[in-house]
Amino acid sequence: MTFLYKADPARGEQWARLFAQKAPELEFRLWPDLGDAAAIRYLAAWQPPEDPARTLPNLEVVFSVGAGIDQFDLSGVPAHVPVVRMIEPGIVEGMVEYVTQAVLTIHRDLFDYALRQQQREWHEMPVRAAASRRVGVLGLGVLGTAVLERLRLFGFPCAGWSRSPRTLDGIDCYAGNETLGAFLARTDVLICLLPLTEATRGLLDAKLFAALPEGASIVNVGRGPQLNQDDLLAALASGRLRNAILDVTDPEPLPASHPLWTHPRVRITPHIASATRPDTAVDVVLDNIRRHRAGQPMLGQIDRSRGY
Amino acid sequence: MTFLYKADPARGEQWARLFAQKAPELEFRLWPDLGDAAAIRYLAAWQPPEDPARTLPNLEVVFSVGAGIDQFDLSGVPAHVPVVRMIEPGIVEGMVEYVTQAVLTIHRDLFDYALRQQQREWHEMPVRAAASRRVGVLGLGVLGTAVLERLRLFGFPCAGWSRSPRTLDGIDCYAGNETLGAFLARTDVLICLLPLTEATRGLLDAKLFAALPEGASIVNVGRGPQLNQDDLLAALASGRLRNAILDVTDPEPLPASHPLWTHPRVRITPHIASATRPDTAVDVVLDNIRRHRAGQPMLGQIDRSRGY
Repeated sequence: MTFLYKADPARGEQWARLFAQKAPELEFRLWPDLGDAAAIRYLAAWQPPEDPARTLPNLEVVFSVGAGIDQFDLSGVPAHVPVVRMIEPGIVEGMVEYVTQAVLTIHRDLFDYALRQQQREWHEMPVRAAASRRVGVLGLGVLGTAVLERLRLFGFPCAGWSRSPRTLDGIDCYAGNETLGAFLARTDVLICLLPLTEATRGLLDAKLFAALPEGASIVNVGRGPQLNQDDLLAALASGRLRNAILDVTDPEPLPASHPLWTHPRVRITPHIASATRPDTAVDVVLDNIRRHRAGQPMLGQIDRSRGY
Repeated sequence: MTFLYKADPARGEQWARLFAQKAPELEFRLWPDLGDAAAIRYLAAWQPPEDPARTLPNLEVVFSVGAGIDQFDLSGVPAHVPVVRMIEPGIVEGMVEYVTQAVLTIHRDLFDYALRQQQREWHEMPVRAAASRRVGVLGLGVLGTAVLERLRLFGFPCAGWSRSPRTLDGIDCYAGNETLGAFLARTDVLICLLPLTEATRGLLDAKLFAALPEGASIVNVGRGPQLNQDDLLAALASGRLRNAILDVTDPEPLPASHPLWTHPRVRITPHIASATRPDTAVDVVLDNIRRHRAGQPMLGQIDRSRGY
C-alpha cells in the first residue's frame, strides 16, 4: 500500500520524513518516482496527474494539499474516488492570524496612519470602540468559524453568511441568497472566505459593494476570481469602499503593471494568509487514512456536485 | 461638592454630559470656570493647575485622565491627597487591539510584504508557526496582563517581566532586575508597557537590544523617553533588531526631520494605541468617588514614592 505526494518537492521531503516516523508501514513516494503505480492507493496533490484513472489504476482517495480544491481538474478522477480537502490546525492558525491582523489594521485606521507617516505628519484621529465596527464573514466553514470566534473576543459585533443555515455562539448567522442583502447592510468590514465555485466567481462586484455601508472595507482571503478587481478600483475611487486587503488576486502572481499594486488603500500579499504545515497536515492525512480503512467518514471530504 | 475637569475641552463636554446623567448630585466644572473653588473636592486632569494647594484648598483626590501619571507635576499636590491613574475598559481594549495588531504584523512578515508591494513583487516567504515566535511584555500591570492574555490565544509562547513577582496563567513571569537578561534572551518580539520612572527612562537602549536574540523586534507603547532612539536606529542598521513599532516618541510630536519617520522598518503612530473613552472613564471615576467616600481603596491609586 503506497502513498504518493505530488506537490512542492521541498515540502514533499518534509512529508517523507514525517511519514517515515509516523507511518513506517506505508510506502511513501514522491512524484514523479511512482515505483509500482498499481500499489498507489492514496494521492496528496496540488494538482492530480493527467488521466489519473490510467496512471494510478487503484487509487482510493485524493487529498488536496490546500484548503480549497478549486485548482483541481477532477474530470479525470473516477466518481467513486473520494476527494478530501486540507483542514488542519496549521491552516486554521495562519488564517486566524492573517484576518485578525487585517481587521485590526482597518479598525485602527492604520492605512491612514501609514499615509501620514509618509508625510511625516503627527496627527491623531479619534479611537473608535470595537463595539461600533461590525465585522462580517462570507463563508462559515472551519476557517470562517475560527476567524469569527477570535474576532468576537475583541468586542466587534460579528456576523457570518453561508449558503446553508448555521448556528454559532455569539455570531449573527445569515443563510441563503435572500439574506445576503441584510448581512451586507450591517457589515463595515467584509471578509471573504468562500470556496471558489460558479456561484461565487465574481461575487465581490459593484452590486455587492453597493449593498455595504458607505466606507466599508473588504478583506479577500478566499480566491482571486471571486473579486471583480475593476469594480474594486472604481469603488475605492468613489469612496464607496475605504480599504482593501487582498491575499489573493486574479491572476496570481498579479502582473507588475496592475494598478492594485500601487493603490494607497490596497494591501496585497502573495497568497500567504495561511499555508499547510507538513507537521500538522501529515497527522490529519494519516487520521483520514485510518478512517477510510475503517469505513468511517473522512474529515474534509468534499461533495463533488457542490464543488466544495 | 464639586468635580473639576481640566484636560481636552471637547472631551470635557462629553464628561459634563455624562456626569449630568449619571451623577446629577455632583456639581461639574470645566476648567478654567472654577465657580466656588473651595467646593472643589475632585480633580480630573492631564496636568494639575499650578500651586494646586492654593488654587483648590479642599481638594481630596486627583484623577489622571491618562493611564500614566508621568506627565504630572505632583510637587504641589499635598502628600495627603491621593493620586489615581486611569484604568478603564476603553483604555484596555484599545491597547489589546494595538499590540495584537503590532505583534501579528511582525510575526506575519508584513513589513517585508509592504516593501515587496512597493516593488510590485509577488514573492512568498514561509509561514512560521506562532509556537516558534516568543513574545515578551515588560510591565505586568492591567494593560500588560490583558495584552498577554490575548496574545496567548494565538499560540505564541508568552512571558512577562515586572519589578515585583506576579503569577499569571500560561505566562512565564520574570521579576526583578536579576531576571531581566533571561527574559530578554527568550524574547523575539518585545513589548514595552512600563510606566515612565527614573528606573525605566532610557531602558530600551543598545545594552538591552544586545540581550535580545539577533533579529528581534520591538513594540513601544510605554513612553517615548524609555527608548533611546539613536540606539534603535543603530540596532536596525546592524540587523540586531529587525522591526520597530512605536506609538510613543521623544519628543512628541516627533519632528518632521527625524530619521525614524522614513525608516522602512519603523512604523510610527501618534500616541493613539489607546485613549481614555469618556463613557467608560466616567463610570470608573464615579465608582472611585463612591469608594473614597465609603473609605474604601480606590482602583488605580498610585504609590507616590514609586511614581506609579
